[in-house]
Amino acid sequence: MTAKYHDPVLAREVAAVVPVNRELADTARKHLDSLTKPRGSLGRLEELAECLFAIQGQSPIIAAPARMLTIAADHGVVVEGVASSPKEVTRLMVNNFLQGGAAINSLCEAAGAQLRVVDAGVDAEPFAPHELFIDAKIARGTANMAEGPAMTEEQCAMALRLGCDLAESALQDGVRVLGTGEMGIGNTTASSALLCAYLGFSVPEMTGMGAGIPKAGLEHKTKVIEKALHSNAAAVESRDPFSILAALGGLEIAALAGVIIGGAARRMAVVIDGFISTAAFTAAWKMAPAVRDYCIFSHASAESGHARSLERLGVKPLLDLGMRLGEGTGAALGFFLLEAAAKAFNNMATLEKAMIALEVDGK
Amino acid sequence: MTAKYHDPVLAREVAAVVPVNRELADTARKHLDSLTKPRGSLGRLEELAECLFAIQGQSPIIAAPARMLTIAADHGVVVEGVASSPKEVTRLMVNNFLQGGAAINSLCEAAGAQLRVVDAGVDAEPFAPHELFIDAKIARGTANMAEGPAMTEEQCAMALRLGCDLAESALQDGVRVLGTGEMGIGNTTASSALLCAYLGFSVPEMTGMGAGIPKAGLEHKTKVIEKALHSNAAAVESRDPFSILAALGGLEIAALAGVIIGGAARRMAVVIDGFISTAAFTAAWKMAPAVRDYCIFSHASAESGHARSLERLGVKPLLDLGMRLGEGTGAALGFFLLEAAAKAFNNMATLEKAMIALEVDGK
Repeated sequence: MTAKYHDPVLAREVAAVVPVNRELADTARKHLDSLTKPRGSLGRLEELAECLFAIQGQSPIIAAPARMLTIAADHGVVVEGVASSPKEVTRLMVNNFLQGGAAINSLCEAAGAQLRVVDAGVDAEPFAPHELFIDAKIARGTANMAEGPAMTEEQCAMALRLGCDLAESALQDGVRVLGTGEMGIGNTTASSALLCAYLGFSVPEMTGMGAGIPKAGLEHKTKVIEKALHSNAAAVESRDPFSILAALGGLEIAALAGVIIGGAARRMAVVIDGFISTAAFTAAWKMAPAVRDYCIFSHASAESGHARSLERLGVKPLLDLGMRLGEGTGAALGFFLLEAAAKAFNNMATLEKAMIALEVDGK
Repeated sequence: MTAKYHDPVLAREVAAVVPVNRELADTARKHLDSLTKPRGSLGRLEELAECLFAIQGQSPIIAAPARMLTIAADHGVVVEGVASSPKEVTRLMVNNFLQGGAAINSLCEAAGAQLRVVDAGVDAEPFAPHELFIDAKIARGTANMAEGPAMTEEQCAMALRLGCDLAESALQDGVRVLGTGEMGIGNTTASSALLCAYLGFSVPEMTGMGAGIPKAGLEHKTKVIEKALHSNAAAVESRDPFSILAALGGLEIAALAGVIIGGAARRMAVVIDGFISTAAFTAAWKMAPAVRDYCIFSHASAESGHARSLERLGVKPLLDLGMRLGEGTGAALGFFLLEAAAKAFNNMATLEKAMIALEVDGK
């Protein structure tokens, strides 16, 4: 079900997302079974190696460098009182990323991954230039989706194209694996609305605590999301994934959907973070179903609704560490698992070689 | 319940294992709650940071260098036909470790960890010297536990002391975190027997496929373990953890129990691998209960019996990736999570500092 895009760039990107060749996964499986270990004993690391081989189509499989794209934007819906933090925290956290003080900085460093921080729509003056920073502000936040569409179709298309551009420049820089990260006060609200619209969940099923609203706030948040779905009923009922994204998404969420489409179009693996990234994945998948073959789901967020969404998508995430921070933190841990899988796939001895060694030993 | 040891070295090691100061965990929790993230949002990474702070007692917490101790030995019980591979594979895999061709080599490399391969009792001539290799052969394998004790008490004490020595030399080399790894054809059989004796499981509850025996083999393996428990009934009924370890353990399992005791005695964190390492942990814990405070359970092995054992021990492992390879492969992934937790704990900005930055910004 590919949406009819007026935008020729997006149409080209979507068309370039093609399924991987399944025979390559079989080739990878045969190689894995030839290595010095009981068959299948590396568990899901073997699945990761298969996935990467099917994407890249050759040995050695390469999981580095990996680049985390942490994309920030604000959400008009915060005027409804759905978030536990003031909107200014989005800007503040972008500064924190650039100063190296956030969780994503530490986790990317641990994983040996690059980090880029992208302003897709923070409601603030432009940030000062910084080596980690990409200035791509489309608007100073979205409009309030409780009252109408969060984005114009042109804004949504710009955000999707931004994501594709980020994938392209990563490719130019030799990056092999992308990670999806985000920062945006109010973005669990937008993500819940998107997942309801795309996957048919009821609002209470998809509404959670976000960064930490109290219980009374949860009921209010549910009502605001219901109002947003009602105000944007035409888009929801159209079942057009692009229209739904424009109506209920966010600039960072649309940009991440673009990263996923653009990454898959360029045959790059994309490691998906938590709840908000899963909403972005779902948008991308509805537009270009074959993105699925390129995506690795890093972790189950503690945000209620995430586990349910992944289950409906038929996905079992790699990690379940009770994390609910966003920024790309779960995906950064996923980078490491992918790198570990690649090293095992590339460097382990084969049983045949080990048996020859036995004979040479003569023992 | 500390066993009465005749061996003064072991008695000293066991006595040196003291619980961590719980107040330190509170201090760590306060620090974590002051960082730029919603409280608790790093999930189990926060738990790891607390654990490491409680062990080390100061900031910064240090998770590197980490050293994997992959200890190899053979098992007399393989003559009963309990294993899917011939005993020679133990020796072969030690050579594979030393040539860099095994899974543990790749995973230690991915995690940036050191690897040491220890011969505690391989049934083969001594291995040639190698920079990764530690020659500490106590015997050419254990005796057949189906017929009587696997080890003499002296052998078992030697293996425990070996583990303590490995912890000591790691400390001398500046290592901060130890990992438990093993290689020994037949060692799931010994581990099942130990876990039955220590934790009161029935033999079928603890008996699994190991590296891949067929279903008929599983019934036979169960009978052999039952025979071993019967042949060593005096040790089992004594409830003395040392006597049980000597009767049903293996030289590598006893050495790993020594690593755990010796590591905890030296206030080092010890990352526990899968099923066999959990049997070694259980032996160590029965001898010196406070080892618990120093141990991090890296993963749930796909070996049936592991999840049950961890549940009875009240432990929730970090990872569940369907791995069942041993060698320390799960613990190597755990090293990375510990390093990620330490970096976040040490390097993240505090909310206070970020708020000051906000004011200085003047926006």
